[in-house]
Amino acid sequence: MQARGRLIGLGVGPGDPELITLKALRLLRESPVVAYFVAKGKKGNAFGIIEDHLVAQQTLMPLVYPVTTEVLPAPMSYEQIISDFYDNASLDVAAHLDAGRDVAVICEGDPFFYGSYMYLHDRLAERYEAQVIPGVCSMLGGASVLGAPLVYRNQSLSVLSGVLPADDLKRRLADADAAVIMKLGRNFPKVRQVLEELGMAERALYVERATMANQKIVALDQVDPASSPYFSLIIVPGERWQG
Amino acid sequence: MQARGRLIGLGVGPGDPELITLKALRLLRESPVVAYFVAKGKKGNAFGIIEDHLVAQQTLMPLVYPVTTEVLPAPMSYEQIISDFYDNASLDVAAHLDAGRDVAVICEGDPFFYGSYMYLHDRLAERYEAQVIPGVCSMLGGASVLGAPLVYRNQSLSVLSGVLPADDLKRRLADADAAVIMKLGRNFPKVRQVLEELGMAERALYVERATMANQKIVALDQVDPASSPYFSLIIVPGERWQG
Repeated sequence: MQARGRLIGLGVGPGDPELITLKALRLLRESPVVAYFVAKGKKGNAFGIIEDHLVAQQTLMPLVYPVTTEVLPAPMSYEQIISDFYDNASLDVAAHLDAGRDVAVICEGDPFFYGSYMYLHDRLAERYEAQVIPGVCSMLGGASVLGAPLVYRNQSLSVLSGVLPADDLKRRLADADAAVIMKLGRNFPKVRQVLEELGMAERALYVERATMANQKIVALDQVDPASSPYFSLIIVPGERWQG
Repeated sequence: MQARGRLIGLGVGPGDPELITLKALRLLRESPVVAYFVAKGKKGNAFGIIEDHLVAQQTLMPLVYPVTTEVLPAPMSYEQIISDFYDNASLDVAAHLDAGRDVAVICEGDPFFYGSYMYLHDRLAERYEAQVIPGVCSMLGGASVLGAPLVYRNQSLSVLSGVLPADDLKRRLADADAAVIMKLGRNFPKVRQVLEELGMAERALYVERATMANQKIVALDQVDPASSPYFSLIIVPGERWQG
Protein backbone atom coordinates (compact mmCIF):
# COMPACT_ATOMS: atom_id res chain seq x y z
CA MET A 1 0.00 0.00 0.00
CA GLN A 2 1.13 3.49 -0.89
CA ALA A 3 2.24 5.44 2.15
CA ARG A 4 0.31 8.67 2.47
CA GLY A 5 1.92 12.05 2.18
CA ARG A 6 2.39 14.52 5.00
CA LEU A 7 0.55 17.80 5.34
CA ILE A 8 3.06 20.51 6.23
CA GLY A 9 2.04 23.97 7.43
CA LEU A 10 5.10 25.98 6.62
CA GLY A 11 5.62 29.41 8.14
CA VAL A 12 7.80 31.50 5.85
CA GLY A 13 8.08 34.60 8.01
CA PRO A 14 6.83 38.17 7.72
CA GLY A 15 8.14 39.19 4.32
CA ASP A 16 11.92 39.47 4.12
CA PRO A 17 12.87 36.24 2.31
CA GLU A 18 15.87 35.92 4.62
CA LEU A 19 13.54 35.63 7.62
CA ILE A 20 12.57 32.08 6.70
CA THR A 21 13.92 29.41 9.05
CA LEU A 22 16.41 26.71 8.02
CA LYS A 23 13.76 24.10 8.76
CA ALA A 24 11.07 25.73 6.63
CA LEU A 25 13.53 26.09 3.77
CA ARG A 26 14.58 22.44 3.97
CA LEU A 27 11.01 21.15 4.05
CA LEU A 28 9.97 23.54 1.29
CA ARG A 29 12.67 22.14 -0.98
CA GLU A 30 11.85 18.54 -0.06
CA SER A 31 8.12 18.89 -0.76
CA PRO A 32 6.91 17.71 -4.15
CA VAL A 33 3.81 19.89 -3.87
CA VAL A 34 3.82 23.52 -2.72
CA ALA A 35 0.38 25.01 -2.03
CA TYR A 36 -0.37 28.63 -1.21
CA PHE A 37 -3.38 30.85 -0.66
CA VAL A 38 -3.69 33.77 -2.99
CA ALA A 39 -6.16 36.44 -4.08
CA LYS A 40 -7.40 36.24 -7.65
CA GLY A 41 -4.98 37.83 -10.07
CA LYS A 42 -2.24 38.24 -7.44
CA LYS A 43 1.02 36.42 -6.93
CA GLY A 44 0.56 36.15 -3.20
CA ASN A 45 2.82 37.39 -0.43
CA ALA A 46 3.82 33.95 0.79
CA PHE A 47 4.69 32.82 -2.72
CA GLY A 48 6.74 35.95 -3.31
CA ILE A 49 8.76 35.18 -0.20
CA ILE A 50 9.78 31.71 -1.30
CA GLU A 51 9.79 31.70 -5.09
CA ASP A 52 13.56 32.05 -5.32
CA HIS A 53 13.93 28.97 -3.13
CA LEU A 54 11.83 26.62 -5.26
CA VAL A 55 13.54 23.68 -6.93
CA ALA A 56 12.80 21.99 -10.24
CA GLN A 57 9.91 19.58 -10.65
CA GLN A 58 7.80 20.92 -7.81
CA THR A 59 4.05 21.10 -8.37
CA LEU A 60 2.71 24.55 -7.54
CA MET A 61 -0.80 24.62 -6.20
CA PRO A 62 -2.38 28.07 -5.87
CA LEU A 63 -5.50 28.07 -3.72
CA VAL A 64 -7.37 31.09 -5.03
CA TYR A 65 -9.77 32.81 -2.63
CA PRO A 66 -13.23 33.12 -4.21
CA VAL A 67 -13.85 36.45 -2.46
CA THR A 68 -11.61 39.18 -1.14
CA THR A 69 -13.90 40.84 1.38
CA GLU A 70 -16.07 39.61 4.23
CA VAL A 71 -18.82 42.05 3.36
CA LEU A 72 -20.95 40.70 0.51
CA PRO A 73 -24.34 41.65 -0.90
CA ALA A 74 -27.23 39.42 0.23
CA PRO A 75 -28.06 36.62 -0.36
CA MET A 76 -24.35 35.79 -0.61
CA SER A 77 -22.83 34.58 2.63
CA TYR A 78 -19.11 35.02 3.19
CA GLU A 79 -19.15 32.22 5.73
CA GLN A 80 -20.74 29.79 3.29
CA ILE A 81 -18.59 30.72 0.31
CA ILE A 82 -15.34 30.57 2.23
CA SER A 83 -16.31 27.37 3.99
CA ASP A 84 -17.03 25.69 0.64
CA PHE A 85 -13.71 27.01 -0.63
CA TYR A 86 -11.79 25.44 2.27
CA ASP A 87 -13.70 22.19 1.80
CA ASN A 88 -12.69 22.05 -1.85
CA ALA A 89 -9.12 23.10 -1.19
CA SER A 90 -8.86 20.32 1.38
CA LEU A 91 -10.05 17.78 -1.16
CA ASP A 92 -7.46 18.96 -3.65
CA VAL A 93 -4.70 18.76 -1.04
CA ALA A 94 -5.94 15.37 0.15
CA ALA A 95 -5.70 13.98 -3.39
CA HIS A 96 -1.94 14.62 -3.31
CA LEU A 97 -1.61 13.20 0.19
CA ASP A 98 -3.48 10.05 -0.83
CA ALA A 99 -1.10 9.65 -3.75
CA GLY A 100 1.81 9.70 -1.32
CA ARG A 101 3.00 13.21 -1.98
CA ASP A 102 3.88 15.60 0.83
CA VAL A 103 2.15 18.97 0.50
CA ALA A 104 3.79 22.07 1.97
CA VAL A 105 1.24 24.81 2.51
CA ILE A 106 3.28 27.98 2.75
CA CYS A 107 2.02 30.66 5.09
CA GLU A 108 3.10 34.24 5.51
CA GLY A 109 4.19 34.71 9.10
CA ASP A 110 3.23 31.75 11.24
CA PRO A 111 0.69 29.05 10.22
CA PHE A 112 -1.21 29.09 13.53
CA PHE A 113 -1.25 32.86 14.01
CA TYR A 114 -4.31 33.97 12.00
CA GLY A 115 -3.22 31.83 9.04
CA SER A 116 -5.53 30.38 6.39
CA TYR A 117 -3.60 27.13 6.77
CA MET A 118 -5.54 26.56 9.99
CA TYR A 119 -8.70 25.79 8.04
CA LEU A 120 -6.96 23.06 6.06
CA HIS A 121 -5.35 21.76 9.23
CA ASP A 122 -8.71 21.50 10.98
CA ARG A 123 -10.10 19.56 8.03
CA LEU A 124 -7.16 17.21 7.45
CA ALA A 125 -4.96 16.78 10.54
CA GLU A 126 -7.10 14.06 12.04
CA ARG A 127 -6.78 11.88 8.96
CA TYR A 128 -3.27 12.69 7.76
CA GLU A 129 0.05 13.19 9.44
CA ALA A 130 0.47 16.93 9.85
CA GLN A 131 3.56 18.90 10.81
CA VAL A 132 3.64 22.62 11.49
CA ILE A 133 6.80 24.68 11.14
CA PRO A 134 6.44 27.91 13.10
CA GLY A 135 7.53 31.17 11.53
CA VAL A 136 8.38 34.70 12.54
CA CYS A 137 4.98 36.36 12.76
CA SER A 138 4.21 39.81 11.37
CA MET A 139 3.94 41.51 14.75
CA LEU A 140 7.50 40.53 15.67
CA GLY A 141 8.70 41.57 12.23
CA GLY A 142 6.94 44.87 12.86
CA ALA A 143 8.44 45.40 16.31
CA SER A 144 11.92 44.70 14.94
CA VAL A 145 11.79 47.29 12.16
CA LEU A 146 10.16 49.83 14.47
CA GLY A 147 12.93 49.28 17.02
CA ALA A 148 10.21 48.81 19.62
CA PRO A 149 10.70 46.37 22.50
CA LEU A 150 7.23 44.89 22.84
CA VAL A 151 6.73 43.52 26.35
CA TYR A 152 8.85 43.87 29.48
CA ARG A 153 9.00 41.48 32.42
CA ASN A 154 5.46 40.64 33.52
CA GLN A 155 3.55 42.92 31.19
CA SER A 156 0.53 41.53 29.34
CA LEU A 157 0.29 41.70 25.58
CA SER A 158 -3.05 41.96 23.78
CA VAL A 159 -3.20 41.06 20.12
CA LEU A 160 -6.34 42.50 18.58
CA SER A 161 -8.03 42.55 15.21
CA GLY A 162 -8.87 45.95 13.78
CA VAL A 163 -12.17 44.43 12.66
CA LEU A 164 -13.48 44.51 16.25
CA PRO A 165 -16.16 47.11 17.07
CA ALA A 166 -14.81 50.36 18.54
CA ASP A 167 -16.19 49.77 22.03
CA ASP A 168 -14.70 46.29 22.21
CA LEU A 169 -11.33 47.59 20.99
CA LYS A 170 -11.47 50.40 23.50
CA ARG A 171 -12.21 48.18 26.46
CA ARG A 172 -9.45 45.73 25.55
CA LEU A 173 -6.86 48.39 24.80
CA ALA A 174 -7.58 50.24 28.04
CA ASP A 175 -6.60 47.09 29.94
CA ALA A 176 -3.49 46.23 27.91
CA ASP A 177 0.10 46.87 29.01
CA ALA A 178 1.16 46.44 25.40
CA ALA A 179 -0.90 45.83 22.29
CA VAL A 180 -0.68 44.91 18.65
CA ILE A 181 -3.55 45.71 16.32
CA MET A 182 -3.63 43.69 13.12
CA LYS A 183 -5.92 43.76 10.09
CA LEU A 184 -6.12 47.49 9.70
CA GLY A 185 -6.96 48.41 6.12
CA ARG A 186 -10.37 50.03 6.08
CA ASN A 187 -10.52 49.72 9.87
CA PHE A 188 -7.69 52.19 10.31
CA PRO A 189 -9.72 55.35 11.03
CA LYS A 190 -11.75 53.61 13.74
CA VAL A 191 -8.63 52.21 15.39
CA ARG A 192 -6.79 55.53 15.37
CA GLN A 193 -9.84 57.26 16.83
CA VAL A 194 -9.98 54.75 19.68
CA LEU A 195 -6.27 55.17 20.41
CA GLU A 196 -6.71 58.94 20.49
CA GLU A 197 -9.66 58.71 22.84
CA LEU A 198 -7.61 56.54 25.18
CA GLY A 199 -4.61 58.86 25.08
CA MET A 200 -2.54 56.02 23.62
CA ALA A 201 -1.97 57.50 20.16
CA GLU A 202 1.37 59.03 21.07
CA ARG A 203 2.78 55.70 22.18
CA ALA A 204 1.46 53.93 19.08
CA LEU A 205 3.69 53.04 16.13
CA TYR A 206 2.51 52.18 12.62
CA VAL A 207 4.12 50.11 9.88
CA GLU A 208 2.96 48.80 6.51
CA ARG A 209 4.34 45.55 5.09
CA ALA A 210 6.99 45.19 7.78
CA THR A 211 10.29 43.66 6.57
CA MET A 212 9.09 43.57 2.93
CA ALA A 213 10.91 45.46 0.19
CA ASN A 214 8.08 48.01 0.06
CA GLN A 215 7.87 48.46 3.84
CA LYS A 216 6.67 51.85 5.00
CA ILE A 217 6.91 53.38 8.47
CA VAL A 218 4.66 56.39 8.99
CA ALA A 219 3.82 58.47 12.07
CA LEU A 220 0.32 57.50 13.18
CA ASP A 221 -1.12 60.99 12.65
CA GLN A 222 0.36 61.11 9.14
CA VAL A 223 -1.24 57.91 7.86
CA ASP A 224 -3.62 58.38 4.96
CA PRO A 225 -6.60 56.20 5.95
CA ALA A 226 -7.57 55.69 2.34
CA SER A 227 -4.29 53.97 1.57
CA SER A 228 -3.67 51.87 4.69
CA PRO A 229 -3.30 48.29 3.46
CA TYR A 230 -4.57 45.16 5.17
CA PHE A 231 -0.96 44.17 5.84
CA SER A 232 -0.28 47.04 8.17
CA LEU A 233 -0.20 47.00 11.93
CA ILE A 234 -0.08 49.22 14.96
CA ILE A 235 2.12 48.47 17.93
CA VAL A 236 1.67 50.02 21.35
CA PRO A 237 4.86 48.93 23.10
CA GLY A 238 4.91 48.23 26.83
CA GLU A 239 6.21 51.03 29.03
CA ARG A 240 9.96 50.76 29.27
CA TRP A 241 11.12 49.10 32.46
CA GLN A 242 13.45 51.50 34.20
CA GLY A 243 15.57 48.66 35.49
CA MET B 1 38.28 57.75 12.96
CA GLN B 2 37.35 54.17 13.68
CA ALA B 3 33.79 53.38 12.57
CA ARG B 4 31.73 52.10 15.46
CA GLY B 5 30.34 48.59 15.58
CA ARG B 6 26.68 47.68 15.33
CA LEU B 7 24.58 46.29 18.14
CA ILE B 8 22.60 43.33 16.83
CA GLY B 9 19.72 41.75 18.76
CA LEU B 10 19.58 38.33 17.23
CA GLY B 11 16.55 36.11 17.73
CA VAL B 12 17.58 32.47 17.44
CA GLY B 13 14.16 30.87 17.80
CA PRO B 14 12.48 28.72 20.43
CA GLY B 15 14.95 25.87 20.81
CA ASP B 16 15.22 23.64 17.75
CA PRO B 17 18.50 24.85 16.16
CA GLU B 18 16.87 24.48 12.75
CA LEU B 19 14.31 27.17 13.68
CA ILE B 20 16.87 29.94 13.34
CA THR B 21 16.32 32.23 10.33
CA LEU B 22 18.74 32.55 7.42
CA LYS B 23 19.28 36.17 8.38
CA ALA B 24 20.09 35.45 12.01
CA LEU B 25 22.51 32.74 10.95
CA ARG B 26 24.28 35.01 8.49
CA LEU B 27 24.63 37.86 10.98
CA LEU B 28 25.70 35.45 13.71
CA ARG B 29 28.54 34.19 11.55
CA GLU B 30 29.53 37.68 10.47
CA SER B 31 29.72 39.05 14.02
CA PRO B 32 33.16 39.15 15.61
CA VAL B 33 31.60 39.23 19.09
CA VAL B 34 28.76 36.98 20.22
CA ALA B 35 27.17 37.90 23.56
CA TYR B 36 24.58 35.91 25.45
CA PHE B 37 22.78 36.02 28.76
CA VAL B 38 23.25 33.01 30.96
CA ALA B 39 22.66 31.83 34.53
CA LYS B 40 25.73 31.14 36.61
CA GLY B 41 27.16 27.69 35.96
CA LYS B 42 24.86 27.08 32.97
CA LYS B 43 25.56 26.97 29.27
CA GLY B 44 22.46 28.95 28.40
CA ASN B 45 19.61 27.99 26.09
CA ALA B 46 20.39 30.58 23.43
CA PHE B 47 24.03 29.53 23.33
CA GLY B 48 23.06 25.87 23.04
CA ILE B 49 20.93 26.68 20.02
CA ILE B 50 23.72 28.34 18.06
CA GLU B 51 26.96 26.78 19.24
CA ASP B 52 27.23 24.48 16.23
CA HIS B 53 26.96 27.51 13.95
CA LEU B 54 29.85 29.47 15.44
CA VAL B 55 32.90 30.11 13.31
CA ALA B 56 36.56 30.40 14.27
CA GLN B 57 37.94 33.54 15.89
CA GLN B 58 34.70 34.78 17.34
CA THR B 59 34.85 36.33 20.79
CA LEU B 60 32.28 34.78 23.10
CA MET B 61 30.88 37.09 25.71
CA PRO B 62 28.72 35.45 28.37
CA LEU B 63 26.67 37.94 30.38
CA VAL B 64 26.13 36.08 33.64
CA TYR B 65 23.04 37.00 35.65
CA PRO B 66 24.02 37.90 39.24
CA VAL B 67 20.78 36.42 40.60
CA THR B 68 18.38 33.76 39.40
CA THR B 69 15.23 34.75 41.25
CA GLU B 70 13.29 37.97 41.69
CA VAL B 71 12.61 37.17 45.35
CA LEU B 72 15.60 38.10 47.47
CA PRO B 73 16.12 38.51 51.22
CA ALA B 74 16.11 42.13 52.44
CA PRO B 75 17.99 44.44 52.16
CA MET B 76 18.87 43.05 48.71
CA SER B 77 16.81 44.54 45.92
CA TYR B 78 16.34 42.54 42.74
CA GLU B 79 15.59 45.72 40.83
CA GLN B 80 18.82 47.36 41.94
CA ILE B 81 21.02 44.32 41.42
CA ILE B 82 19.67 43.55 37.98
CA SER B 83 19.73 47.19 36.93
CA ASP B 84 23.41 47.44 37.91
CA PHE B 85 24.05 44.23 36.00
CA TYR B 86 22.49 45.61 32.80
CA ASP B 87 24.45 48.85 33.25
CA ASN B 88 27.71 46.93 33.47
CA ALA B 89 26.83 44.56 30.63
CA SER B 90 26.06 47.59 28.45
CA LEU B 91 29.48 49.07 29.24
CA ASP B 92 31.18 45.82 28.28
CA VAL B 93 29.23 45.63 25.02
CA ALA B 94 29.87 49.30 24.30
CA ALA B 95 33.62 48.76 24.63
CA HIS B 96 33.48 46.38 21.66
CA LEU B 97 31.22 48.73 19.68
CA ASP B 98 33.60 51.64 20.32
CA ALA B 99 36.45 49.50 19.03
CA GLY B 100 34.53 49.00 15.79
CA ARG B 101 33.39 45.45 16.44
CA ASP B 102 29.79 44.37 15.79
CA VAL B 103 28.23 42.59 18.76
CA ALA B 104 25.48 40.02 18.19
CA VAL B 105 23.44 39.49 21.33
CA ILE B 106 21.76 36.16 20.82
CA CYS B 107 18.28 35.75 22.28
CA GLU B 108 16.16 32.67 22.70
CA GLY B 109 12.91 33.24 20.80
CA ASP B 110 12.55 36.86 19.75
CA PRO B 111 14.64 39.77 21.12
CA PHE B 112 11.67 42.08 21.74
CA PHE B 113 9.30 39.48 23.18
CA TYR B 114 10.27 39.39 26.88
CA GLY B 115 13.95 39.20 25.99
CA SER B 116 16.82 40.39 28.19
CA TYR B 117 18.30 42.00 25.09
CA MET B 118 15.70 44.75 25.50
CA TYR B 119 17.60 46.14 28.50
CA LEU B 120 20.80 46.48 26.50
CA HIS B 121 18.85 47.95 23.60
CA ASP B 122 17.27 50.59 25.82
CA ARG B 123 20.71 51.55 27.14
CA LEU B 124 22.60 51.57 23.83
CA ALA B 125 20.32 52.03 20.82
CA GLU B 126 20.30 55.79 21.05
CA ARG B 127 24.08 56.01 20.85
CA TYR B 128 24.91 53.11 18.54
CA GLU B 129 23.42 51.71 15.38
CA ALA B 130 21.17 48.85 16.43
CA GLN B 131 19.55 46.17 14.32
CA VAL B 132 17.06 43.62 15.55
CA ILE B 133 16.49 40.30 13.82
CA PRO B 134 13.14 38.88 14.84
CA GLY B 135 12.88 35.21 15.74
CA VAL B 136 10.24 32.53 16.16
CA CYS B 137 8.98 33.12 19.70
CA SER B 138 8.34 30.36 22.21
CA MET B 139 4.56 30.61 22.09
CA LEU B 140 4.51 29.89 18.36
CA GLY B 141 7.00 27.07 18.83
CA GLY B 142 4.65 25.76 21.50
CA ALA B 143 1.53 26.02 19.35
CA SER B 144 3.28 24.18 16.51
CA VAL B 145 4.33 21.15 18.56
CA LEU B 146 0.94 21.03 20.29
CA GLY B 147 -0.77 21.08 16.90
CA ALA B 148 -2.93 23.91 18.21
CA PRO B 149 -4.12 26.68 15.88
CA LEU B 150 -3.86 29.70 18.14
CA VAL B 151 -6.21 32.44 16.91
CA TYR B 152 -8.94 32.39 14.26
CA ARG B 153 -10.22 35.32 12.23
CA ASN B 154 -10.96 38.22 14.57
CA GLN B 155 -10.25 36.53 17.86
CA SER B 156 -8.15 38.36 20.44
CA LEU B 157 -5.03 36.81 21.90
CA SER B 158 -3.84 37.58 25.43
CA VAL B 159 -0.25 36.83 26.31
CA LEU B 160 0.12 36.73 30.08
CA SER B 161 2.86 36.17 32.62
CA GLY B 162 2.27 33.44 35.18
CA VAL B 163 3.79 35.81 37.72
CA LEU B 164 0.61 37.92 37.76
CA PRO B 165 -1.60 37.66 40.86
CA ALA B 166 -4.44 35.14 40.60
CA ASP B 167 -7.23 37.71 40.45
CA ASP B 168 -5.49 39.65 37.68
CA LEU B 169 -4.88 36.44 35.72
CA LYS B 170 -8.48 35.44 36.21
CA ARG B 171 -9.92 38.72 35.00
CA ARG B 172 -7.71 38.76 31.91
CA LEU B 173 -8.26 35.12 31.03
CA ALA B 174 -12.03 35.44 31.39
CA ASP B 175 -11.98 38.08 28.67
CA ALA B 176 -9.59 36.29 26.27
CA ASP B 177 -10.64 34.44 23.12
CA ALA B 178 -7.25 32.72 23.16
CA ALA B 179 -4.43 32.94 25.65
CA VAL B 180 -0.82 32.03 26.22
CA ILE B 181 0.57 31.95 29.73
CA MET B 182 4.33 32.18 29.96
CA LYS B 183 6.76 32.06 32.90
CA LEU B 184 5.15 29.18 34.75
CA GLY B 185 7.70 27.42 36.96
CA ARG B 186 6.69 27.97 40.57
CA ASN B 187 3.58 29.85 39.37
CA PHE B 188 2.13 26.71 37.83
CA PRO B 189 -0.26 25.66 40.65
CA LYS B 190 -1.79 29.14 40.82
CA VAL B 191 -2.30 29.27 37.06
CA ARG B 192 -3.86 25.82 36.87
CA GLN B 193 -6.19 26.68 39.73
CA VAL B 194 -7.37 29.83 37.92
CA LEU B 195 -7.97 27.90 34.69
CA GLU B 196 -10.00 25.31 36.60
CA GLU B 197 -12.09 27.99 38.29
CA LEU B 198 -12.84 29.53 34.90
CA GLY B 199 -13.74 26.19 33.33
CA MET B 200 -10.90 26.67 30.84
CA ALA B 201 -8.66 23.85 32.05
CA GLU B 202 -10.00 21.34 29.54
CA ARG B 203 -9.14 23.59 26.60
CA ALA B 204 -5.67 24.32 27.98
CA LEU B 205 -2.54 22.64 26.64
CA TYR B 206 0.82 22.44 28.37
CA VAL B 207 4.32 22.04 27.01
CA GLU B 208 7.81 22.23 28.51
CA ARG B 209 10.79 23.38 26.46
CA ALA B 210 8.84 23.40 23.19
CA THR B 211 10.88 22.35 20.11
CA MET B 212 13.96 21.53 22.23
CA ALA B 213 15.45 18.05 22.31
CA ASN B 214 14.06 17.53 25.82
CA GLN B 215 10.59 18.87 25.01
CA LYS B 216 7.77 17.38 27.09
CA ILE B 217 4.03 17.58 26.42
CA VAL B 218 1.90 16.67 29.43
CA ALA B 219 -1.85 16.81 30.04
CA LEU B 220 -2.54 19.78 32.29
CA ASP B 221 -3.97 17.68 35.11
CA GLN B 222 -0.93 15.38 35.01
CA VAL B 223 1.69 18.10 35.45
CA ASP B 224 3.79 17.77 38.59
CA PRO B 225 3.85 21.35 39.92
CA ALA B 226 7.15 20.72 41.69
CA SER B 227 8.91 20.01 38.39
CA SER B 228 7.37 22.57 36.03
CA PRO B 229 10.29 24.55 34.61
CA TYR B 230 10.35 28.26 33.87
CA PHE B 231 10.51 27.43 30.17
CA SER B 232 7.07 25.91 30.03
CA LEU B 233 3.89 27.45 28.79
CA ILE B 234 0.16 26.95 28.65
CA ILE B 235 -1.85 27.62 25.54
CA VAL B 236 -5.60 28.09 25.48
CA PRO B 237 -6.33 27.99 21.74
CA GLY B 238 -9.16 30.03 20.27
CA GLU B 239 -12.39 28.17 19.62
CA ARG B 240 -12.21 26.54 16.22
CA TRP B 241 -14.02 28.52 13.56
CA GLN B 242 -16.59 26.23 12.02
CA GLY B 243 -16.11 27.81 8.61
